[in-house]
Amino acid sequence: MLPNAMLKDGFLNDNSQLRVFLDKNENPYDVAPALKEELRMRMQDLSFNRYPDMENRRLREALALDAGLDADNVTVANGGDEIIQMLFLAFTKPGSNVLMLRPCFSQYCYLCKIFPVKQKTVPFKLSEGEVSFDEEKFLDCLSSYSPDLVLLDRPNNPTGKSLPLDFLKEVIRLSPGVVLVDEAYVQFGYDSILDFYGSCDFPDNLVVLRTFSKAWGMAGLRIGYAFTSLNLRKALERVRPPFNLNIISQEAALIALKYKEWMENRVEGIRCTRDRFIADVSKLPGWRAYPSAANFALVESCCDIGAIRESLRINGLEVKFLNPAAFETEGNKRNKTWLRVTIGREEDMGRLINIFKNLS
Amino acid sequence: MLPNAMLKDGFLNDNSQLRVFLDKNENPYDVAPALKEELRMRMQDLSFNRYPDMENRRLREALALDAGLDADNVTVANGGDEIIQMLFLAFTKPGSNVLMLRPCFSQYCYLCKIFPVKQKTVPFKLSEGEVSFDEEKFLDCLSSYSPDLVLLDRPNNPTGKSLPLDFLKEVIRLSPGVVLVDEAYVQFGYDSILDFYGSCDFPDNLVVLRTFSKAWGMAGLRIGYAFTSLNLRKALERVRPPFNLNIISQEAALIALKYKEWMENRVEGIRCTRDRFIADVSKLPGWRAYPSAANFALVESCCDIGAIRESLRINGLEVKFLNPAAFETEGNKRNKTWLRVTIGREEDMGRLINIFKNLS
Repeated sequence: MLPNAMLKDGFLNDNSQLRVFLDKNENPYDVAPALKEELRMRMQDLSFNRYPDMENRRLREALALDAGLDADNVTVANGGDEIIQMLFLAFTKPGSNVLMLRPCFSQYCYLCKIFPVKQKTVPFKLSEGEVSFDEEKFLDCLSSYSPDLVLLDRPNNPTGKSLPLDFLKEVIRLSPGVVLVDEAYVQFGYDSILDFYGSCDFPDNLVVLRTFSKAWGMAGLRIGYAFTSLNLRKALERVRPPFNLNIISQEAALIALKYKEWMENRVEGIRCTRDRFIADVSKLPGWRAYPSAANFALVESCCDIGAIRESLRINGLEVKFLNPAAFETEGNKRNKTWLRVTIGREEDMGRLINIFKNLS
Repeated sequence: MLPNAMLKDGFLNDNSQLRVFLDKNENPYDVAPALKEELRMRMQDLSFNRYPDMENRRLREALALDAGLDADNVTVANGGDEIIQMLFLAFTKPGSNVLMLRPCFSQYCYLCKIFPVKQKTVPFKLSEGEVSFDEEKFLDCLSSYSPDLVLLDRPNNPTGKSLPLDFLKEVIRLSPGVVLVDEAYVQFGYDSILDFYGSCDFPDNLVVLRTFSKAWGMAGLRIGYAFTSLNLRKALERVRPPFNLNIISQEAALIALKYKEWMENRVEGIRCTRDRFIADVSKLPGWRAYPSAANFALVESCCDIGAIRESLRINGLEVKFLNPAAFETEGNKRNKTWLRVTIGREEDMGRLINIFKNLS
């Protein structure tokens, strides 16, 4: 039996090559072996037959300590996805307006359909080598749509763009509803909206989302959490499913926090690989990679999508193809192919660059 | 640091006595040591950095094989609670009617408030030693309220009553909406609604909920699942959060299935303890325990609630006190105290019986 079903690196495809998954923004590195060993030892003492602590208190306290906040500022969830679903459940009703940038994390749009609410968007613009959007227009939408929920991922997925902090502060200040700042990838960038707020002056309409799935390399354990004011936490608690995070993931997160430096070193390595990859792609004729503050990069190509797909398939590499309709582009970009490429190991990115080179 | 925070057996209270938790319907026995050891070995091969298989395929196939159904009949979730939430999300809209018996699993009522839907109930009646309800009235409610969702736990929580299978089949046949048969405690009883249906003739409006939290003794790992028709599964999949069950819980469930006989032996032991406990309580003057098909029993007492609470507190035992307003009782039962007592180890129940004896 293969671990994590077919998802593990090292799975052989028809050509006996290593398959490489650069499609889900996963960390290419597993956790520190010592972390896993600590968790294995700890497991002997865990009572599987008992429910998790209803309040997730130990983990909330540890996360608060790490961020310089209070345990009452922290809500823990079964992945960041659960936090986002809780926001829809707590703060929208059918027909509510929900405002976001376009494109953004696909789950935002999906939840808008399910709940169902009205999705309002302001588009990113792609000009030569630049990702931008109309900040004034976004702020205007706050008053014209009065959204119950504003969803902003920073860095943005899939563009890798890190939104200006001054802009975010204005959104928080002017928004009539709740504002999610989704910092799932924050460690790959350089600053956080949390730099502005402490436990005492945390805005009552702000939710900052974090996860152990990306920089921490623990996507399989599904650990997400949110920083909020005490008041907003109460509203989230009301809709939080009981016992929502299992005991092993909670222990794993507690142990992981002791390996923060190890994580940061890995993140620094991924940043270097990312910046080299972006520079190398942009040197290829007909290809361009946009600057990114995350562990992925938006890639634009003049090549036909079918040719790229086939070449990647033969070589056992997976990336995410994006719908060109999602972007507001100048006329001459309409026929381009758009990929979101997760930053993997140095050698994975080398293989990918070679494939691109052979296509150009 | 104490495992599972304060929830572990063996935690000492002020009087240096072992605290015993008989309040959450947990299994008093942890999983087989060999199961935990297998999981610990398996963990070395798991890639924490990769998301779970999006389809949960291996676990769904194993659960289907165990039940004699197909993988397409199975939906996996982060605890049974997540299945129930998915039902509200998929099949109700604000103002929908949701029909259930009263009392029932508290989460049903809570979700009715959150979503929000109209909760319609038919009460259980308690007469001397018997739990019953008006089946005709319930069937009438199906036509008068046209509920989008019917929620029935079998055995019922907190009465321990196992609903007649012929009645359930009628509910499924006549219901205009979806019917949940919540079999969280089914192994402690003697039959299942699944005895009637195979993969080919699975009713298109039936959801059978199961969990690893009770008989399997794995509440801390949060593994729930549902059996449905293929069509109903598609509707559930639409609202299933992505990657909703972490990789370690999935592996643990796969390993647990190899220990089914071990589980069944433990369940048989709990059944014996339960039946003896019910008989012993009912011998005490002023006390009665109702028959139960679950790992808990409904206990009725003439003692004052305050006296019972205090005596349990001093002795370090936790049970669940029930709201008397939840029951339709004859006049002379209004002033009674109602408890739901989880069946623990033989010695735990002995301590509890002694406390009751001293109060009577």
